[in-house]
Amino acid sequence: MAERVSISAGKKRNLKLLADPEGRFRMMAIDQRGSLKRMLAKVMGIEPDDVKYEDLARVKKIITKVLSPYSSATLMDPVYGYPYSIDYIPKDVGVLLAFEETGYEKAGPNGRERRSRPIEGWSVEKAKKAGANAVKLLIYYRPEASDETLKHQQEFVKRVGEECERYDIPFLLELVSYPLLEDEIAASPDPEKPTTDTPVFARRKPEIVMKTAAEFSKPEY
Amino acid sequence: MAERVSISAGKKRNLKLLADPEGRFRMMAIDQRGSLKRMLAKVMGIEPDDVKYEDLARVKKIITKVLSPYSSATLMDPVYGYPYSIDYIPKDVGVLLAFEETGYEKAGPNGRERRSRPIEGWSVEKAKKAGANAVKLLIYYRPEASDETLKHQQEFVKRVGEECERYDIPFLLELVSYPLLEDEIAASPDPEKPTTDTPVFARRKPEIVMKTAAEFSKPEY
Repeated sequence: MAERVSISAGKKRNLKLLADPEGRFRMMAIDQRGSLKRMLAKVMGIEPDDVKYEDLARVKKIITKVLSPYSSATLMDPVYGYPYSIDYIPKDVGVLLAFEETGYEKAGPNGRERRSRPIEGWSVEKAKKAGANAVKLLIYYRPEASDETLKHQQEFVKRVGEECERYDIPFLLELVSYPLLEDEIAASPDPEKPTTDTPVFARRKPEIVMKTAAEFSKPEY
Repeated sequence: MAERVSISAGKKRNLKLLADPEGRFRMMAIDQRGSLKRMLAKVMGIEPDDVKYEDLARVKKIITKVLSPYSSATLMDPVYGYPYSIDYIPKDVGVLLAFEETGYEKAGPNGRERRSRPIEGWSVEKAKKAGANAVKLLIYYRPEASDETLKHQQEFVKRVGEECERYDIPFLLELVSYPLLEDEIAASPDPEKPTTDTPVFARRKPEIVMKTAAEFSKPEY
């Protein structure tokens, strides 16, 4: 029998603001940072590190302005996105703010494990003050990682979840897998740039997803 | 020359959520407590104190359900209104929550001065968590009141204003005058129930309004 989950009025109101009038979540994500920087660099014929803050902010602003009105809620990052794009979010469109720093810290015995970090100086309290209707956290996760990395990622999720509960704001957890084991690396076309786009990873993925979902479905989160 | 007022992004977003798409504030107030109780009592042929919590909450719920969709924002009280009405506020309609306890504390040399109090256990932080886009404070004010009463009301406004600033939430101050001086009381049809609906009060009102506005336009608020 499913457990009844009670939900605060404030959180319920926020969930409503994220959904369309039919109650469906039609969210638009424009919180990409590292990947958008690499795309822009390619188009501009420069190195990713040479892409200027203003260019990234401007591209996000334009995309937000054009696409946000078609979404029930728009996911922004607080660094390049929110300051320049918030004025273009219509009043009937909800606001989600990303919590995690872009990318990851390399860790583990082979340096291929990924640990997430918060954006420096950012907090759930600040997201709430900025008018966010939800906080989104992207977490890299492989159940096969070392105990230290697993614990690091689990503690991070717990901490952000607790903060969200304190501020009555919905918490959206985005769990992302990545290539980690030797055979996954070896199967990648360029082992220097391992990818999940291989048969060996595809075969393993259902198990990864189920184990990851099982972990974060525990009541302590 | 007018001073430039800077406004935080969170507060600006909230102001947008209170306005209609043309930027006009079309607000519906259903935060009346004492007066609505008296109206209900009259209709039901009972004493105001005998009006049940459920009846007041139900009337507010029905009014909110019917009228809120026509407003750009709806003002509710957190005691009888919010818990039962919040589900009927459409997602494109903003939420204002009242801060003051209904009525007033009698004070001053003739017992006719009015001092405001917060709703017990309520705070700007809780209003923000509940999903409010603004906090509204009704303050009774007569510049002719005793220094103690003036100070009490001024300090109350300052405290709520500071809390609103801390949580980046707009602060709506509703200043209300009331009959206080002897000639205003004497001119009332029933001096036991003094009213502002007299020629002597009407003549004095412009001065009351200007002095009150001057006080609360000071930079310390």
